[in-house]
Amino acid sequence: MKMMKIDRMQAFSDGVYAILITILVLDFRVPNYQNGYLLGALLKQWPTMFAYLVSFLYIGTVWLFHHDFFQTLKYTNIGLNVINLVMLFSVTLIDYPTALVANTLISGVTTDMRVAFVYYDIIALFISLTFAWLYTYVRKHPELTTMRNNQKHFYAAIKFDPVRSVSIYGLAIVATFFSIWVGAFLLLTGIVYHFVAYLRLSYSMRRALKDIKLEK
Amino acid sequence: MKMMKIDRMQAFSDGVYAILITILVLDFRVPNYQNGYLLGALLKQWPTMFAYLVSFLYIGTVWLFHHDFFQTLKYTNIGLNVINLVMLFSVTLIDYPTALVANTLISGVTTDMRVAFVYYDIIALFISLTFAWLYTYVRKHPELTTMRNNQKHFYAAIKFDPVRSVSIYGLAIVATFFSIWVGAFLLLTGIVYHFVAYLRLSYSMRRALKDIKLEK
Amino acid sequence: MKMMKIDRMQAFSDGVYAILITILVLDFRVPNYQNGYLLGALLKQWPTMFAYLVSFLYIGTVWLFHHDFFQTLKYTNIGLNVINLVMLFSVTLIDYPTALVANTLISGVTTDMRVAFVYYDIIALFISLTFAWLYTYVRKHPELTTMRNNQKHFYAAIKFDPVRSVSIYGLAIVATFFSIWVGAFLLLTGIVYHFVAYLRLSYSMRRALKDIKLEK
Amino acid sequence: MKMMKIDRMQAFSDGVYAILITILVLDFRVPNYQNGYLLGALLKQWPTMFAYLVSFLYIGTVWLFHHDFFQTLKYTNIGLNVINLVMLFSVTLIDYPTALVANTLISGVTTDMRVAFVYYDIIALFISLTFAWLYTYVRKHPELTTMRNNQKHFYAAIKFDPVRSVSIYGLAIVATFFSIWVGAFLLLTGIVYHFVAYLRLSYSMRRALKDIKLEK
Repeated sequence: MKMMKIDRMQAFSDGVYAILITILVLDFRVPNYQNGYLLGALLKQWPTMFAYLVSFLYIGTVWLFHHDFFQTLKYTNIGLNVINLVMLFSVTLIDYPTALVANTLISGVTTDMRVAFVYYDIIALFISLTFAWLYTYVRKHPELTTMRNNQKHFYAAIKFDPVRSVSIYGLAIVATFFSIWVGAFLLLTGIVYHFVAYLRLSYSMRRALKDIKLEK
Repeated sequence: MKMMKIDRMQAFSDGVYAILITILVLDFRVPNYQNGYLLGALLKQWPTMFAYLVSFLYIGTVWLFHHDFFQTLKYTNIGLNVINLVMLFSVTLIDYPTALVANTLISGVTTDMRVAFVYYDIIALFISLTFAWLYTYVRKHPELTTMRNNQKHFYAAIKFDPVRSVSIYGLAIVATFFSIWVGAFLLLTGIVYHFVAYLRLSYSMRRALKDIKLEK
Repeated sequence: MKMMKIDRMQAFSDGVYAILITILVLDFRVPNYQNGYLLGALLKQWPTMFAYLVSFLYIGTVWLFHHDFFQTLKYTNIGLNVINLVMLFSVTLIDYPTALVANTLISGVTTDMRVAFVYYDIIALFISLTFAWLYTYVRKHPELTTMRNNQKHFYAAIKFDPVRSVSIYGLAIVATFFSIWVGAFLLLTGIVYHFVAYLRLSYSMRRALKDIKLEK
Repeated sequence: MKMMKIDRMQAFSDGVYAILITILVLDFRVPNYQNGYLLGALLKQWPTMFAYLVSFLYIGTVWLFHHDFFQTLKYTNIGLNVINLVMLFSVTLIDYPTALVANTLISGVTTDMRVAFVYYDIIALFISLTFAWLYTYVRKHPELTTMRNNQKHFYAAIKFDPVRSVSIYGLAIVATFFSIWVGAFLLLTGIVYHFVAYLRLSYSMRRALKDIKLEK
């Protein structure tokens, strides 16, 4: 048997996702406030809550993708190990622009918000590119997966997803230079799109697996 | 086989709970103190220890619930994945009001304590609502669980728990506006109630499982 | 089947230990230093490195105990779940006195060092008490373990360990009021004693398991 | 059965690696900046991004080593448990010099950069030494592994790796006293060498496993 089981790599990835999604809460810091005025100080922190909500949804969705997609895999190899590590690297980078977006929304200076949004866009674009890489790699290495039969069907359903989200984030970057709010809207659209794409992937995967015994 | 195994979702959730319950200790920070007066400075930190103790008990209890309840499940689907993610989201939010409660107890300003307690209440109420959602969802999707036979018996024992705790936390919010100490007492009652409810769930589940082979 | 498998509880505990032992590194903070004088500033941080080394050894040893001891268990129940949670609670508390010991060693004020050492002692004593509780509980619930036959032999080897370490830490507390260095020496002795006791437990467990098929 | 299964030790190690590689992102902190000048402040943070990238690659590679190497092991014993703990200890230490390298590159003072680089070198050297220890130990305890047959072949391929990387890091320390940039280059070479060595280990292991059924 020449192949490495995929279990530990999944466990390691789950660990990274779980830690990342949880340490996002460390962005919530007790603000400096005058005695008796905590409420006002907290309400001014709404961007922190908003950015947290968005990034939690984002990382959660990426984890769901990882979870579902890797269920179709049975083995790993050097290439997949490296791609997975690059993907985890890209995802961990989301923590910092989340804090930047929250902070610049609080101070409210347009120039700085633009920088923070574009930073977030670039990381999101990077994440989508690693997904495109993953999909391409696995399609070329059918020996890693459990779905040899109707694989084409499966990839037909999802193969354009990374291209689509890369386009959305690219557009968001351009738009942010004209209007930060249009840019922010496109960024949000991209993240919601991921979630919708996950639902589609999940259904399509289920169809693809319908007649195959998931060996693992 | 059309269903996704529930293992990785449990592992991911365990990771989030484990991280959350552990990073609570980061609220303990070496205080600013004059040389020779560390003891006094530490004693003034009692609210941090108290808030840590309560939130550890709370998150620990929620994990125990998660642990026991998910043992009755065998598969997961999109719906359960999403509910679980929302539940984890709600639980991670407990970290911040814990710090707020500790800080406002230290500074001792009633207005700010009220804000911190109500914040904590709202998050606790949110957590209970996600549990209500989970129970309802699983009851409607018996195909996910291993307990088809005497499920009714099982849900009869626990189905009112979320309603009860939502009521307690709702009452706590109202009470806090009249007396923060009555409010705080109700909040504590709610958390202790969770623990007692866990013991009841655990016993009732054991009865429900008595004659069924846990396949997993 | 009436019993809960112990797997997820082990996974959750491993998570807490892994996080705790890793976030200890967050105590290392880039010091304030004048340009060109980083080396001196770092050398002054030796107590941080020393405290980190000791607490890493301590938590690592406690994890090894947990690892070996729980290998003799097959099932869990409410009681064990609660004891385990209290044990994890006690272990997470070690993070803060570690920082206090490091900080007071850096500032070098005897009164404050005494407070920090006694704080550490108390937590260590608390941890040892939870182990005593665990041993007693499992001895009274042989249905949880895989070693029914020569269990007596096994517990004979380890049953006095918690008593011994409670005595050492109790002595350390008293000694610290006379001489903080004698107290510190006893504290270190206690932690090294844990490690030695682990080696003994590990050998004795192996002997106890020799003729029994570890079913799990 | 006298041997301990290796599963939990792998899970614990995976946890530590996952946490360590993720909390590196906490080094990214929103800088102090004048309103409207966030971009400039972020660009000045490039050393933080660079140091993060290098340490992520480093820890990721060490994890890949751990992952592949431990797949050849089936059991653990006291010795391996202790070596693994020392190895995890050495790896967790990488977090602090990463921050020091980033900070001294930002302030740009040669004396301080030298200190930070040498600190990083020493930890890297320490990590390589623990790997040398691990390889030696496992070679002397073939009962722990699944590859009894052509083990010689396997170790022939990797046994000089730790010696080589210890030499590179030793050289880097010496070189840094003459030119910090030559020293930094050697440090980077060492880390990239690890990655290349991993690829070689991975291929050689696959060859070694070719004709053996991985029982686990």
